Amino acid sequence: MVDPNGIYFLGPKGSFSHEASLNMSGLHVEAKSISEIFEKVANEGSIGVVPVENTLEGPVNETLDNLYKWNGVFVNYRIDMRIKLVLAVRNGTRLSDVKKIYSHSHAIHEARNTLSKMGLTNFIPVESTSKAAQLASEERDSAAICSEFAANIYGLKSVLSGIEDGVNITRFLVISKNYTSIGDRTIVLFTIPDVPGALYKVLEKFYIYNINLSMIYSRPTKIVPWNYYFYLEFEGDVDTAEKLGLVRELKEVTNELKIRGSYKMLNSVKHD
Amino acid sequence: MVDPNGIYFLGPKGSFSHEASLNMSGLHVEAKSISEIFEKVANEGSIGVVPVENTLEGPVNETLDNLYKWNGVFVNYRIDMRIKLVLAVRNGTRLSDVKKIYSHSHAIHEARNTLSKMGLTNFIPVESTSKAAQLASEERDSAAICSEFAANIYGLKSVLSGIEDGVNITRFLVISKNYTSIGDRTIVLFTIPDVPGALYKVLEKFYIYNINLSMIYSRPTKIVPWNYYFYLEFEGDVDTAEKLGLVRELKEVTNELKIRGSYKMLNSVKHD
Repeated sequence: MVDPNGIYFLGPKGSFSHEASLNMSGLHVEAKSISEIFEKVANEGSIGVVPVENTLEGPVNETLDNLYKWNGVFVNYRIDMRIKLVLAVRNGTRLSDVKKIYSHSHAIHEARNTLSKMGLTNFIPVESTSKAAQLASEERDSAAICSEFAANIYGLKSVLSGIEDGVNITRFLVISKNYTSIGDRTIVLFTIPDVPGALYKVLEKFYIYNINLSMIYSRPTKIVPWNYYFYLEFEGDVDTAEKLGLVRELKEVTNELKIRGSYKMLNSVKHD
Repeated sequence: MVDPNGIYFLGPKGSFSHEASLNMSGLHVEAKSISEIFEKVANEGSIGVVPVENTLEGPVNETLDNLYKWNGVFVNYRIDMRIKLVLAVRNGTRLSDVKKIYSHSHAIHEARNTLSKMGLTNFIPVESTSKAAQLASEERDSAAICSEFAANIYGLKSVLSGIEDGVNITRFLVISKNYTSIGDRTIVLFTIPDVPGALYKVLEKFYIYNINLSMIYSRPTKIVPWNYYFYLEFEGDVDTAEKLGLVRELKEVTNELKIRGSYKMLNSVKHD
């Protein structure tokens, strides 16, 4: 899928989103926020690559809220990416020279155990792992905890790899204005009546048709306090759900039902 | 409820958590993180006041994850607090002198509309609204978007009030080592078998007993990728649920069920 209007990813250059976006060919363009990516897709027909969930931090709220907001934006593909961290330094710097280690606080948290055992303990949190790589490229006595990809972009060499503790897989969605109704999974967002059993009655529909749910999250609607919408992914596609009558039945038990399409897995990773 | 071991709140002084904690009498102690508060409660028998959800941002993941983690920590009370923002300056500074406005990015987002209309547009994001108040107390040409409470603590006077756009109510939980089984609402956390209909079968139990759910969130367990636990609040208390047989039935349809107790509303606010 090559897009003349650009493939937007969450910057800065060297970010995990940037790396994930390379699964799509075309002109890769940096965006400042996830909301900006949705605007580009909705208003200019661009393609977007946005993080939606990861195994350690959970859902990415800004992506969920934008999927709820934009009725003309749909999900076409999913990209799973295993986040592997390296310790990277500029050319000429040796591990024994390193006095400061830059990274995002999440990545520091992940690599702290391994690095502390080697006597490396002076961690400085910065806004992103790519920013860390950039800083390490400018200072002789510093290092960055970042991806191999970011290290390459900023001309660093990796001196330690596989330094992360947990299994961190980040899931990205490829979004566009094209509605796709065939795929492995389907994304719907909905609100429910404020009565006992309302969510139960929605889930009952999937149970009756023996359809597995792969993800369910609730989020505040931000309009009325303590009012929620639900983000739900189920296995199978909209075409099948339409034929079964599931879509019609879901409309009966929800206040508002927004179908964001079915997607295919563009790539996925195994976890150990 | 006065506690000799201290009532821990998420600092810095002047934070919304600090203000919420004043609903409990005793020695108020500042903590650096939500996780530290849970440790103090679990290990030293202190009382903690932690934010759990707000109407604009949704759940506070660090609180949910700690409730899941600590088997000896229970919820006793809830405090709802309406977040009202003021523009505050030090004594002697007039509105027309203000060149810089400090605040947390969320508060800037909330107050931007109102302030922009008055020509106030130079916003500088800092780590918290209390930090903003502290900075404004040190600089003659700056102001802070913060609570009236923080303004007072840092000796500022408020020159504009009610400057926020949305209705932001933050909900806090009072936690301790005391298990309470009587109250208005009950908090349970659970994992479910990986089969179609597993969540449906849990919700069915509440439906059968006509018990309303007030909140449900899913979070990654962080142990196995794409494995979730659920945080659920229902109306009514554990004592009643035990008598009905609901607790026993919930154990049959969950893998692991953690009951964190029933709580009372210590105070709650109406939204307009």
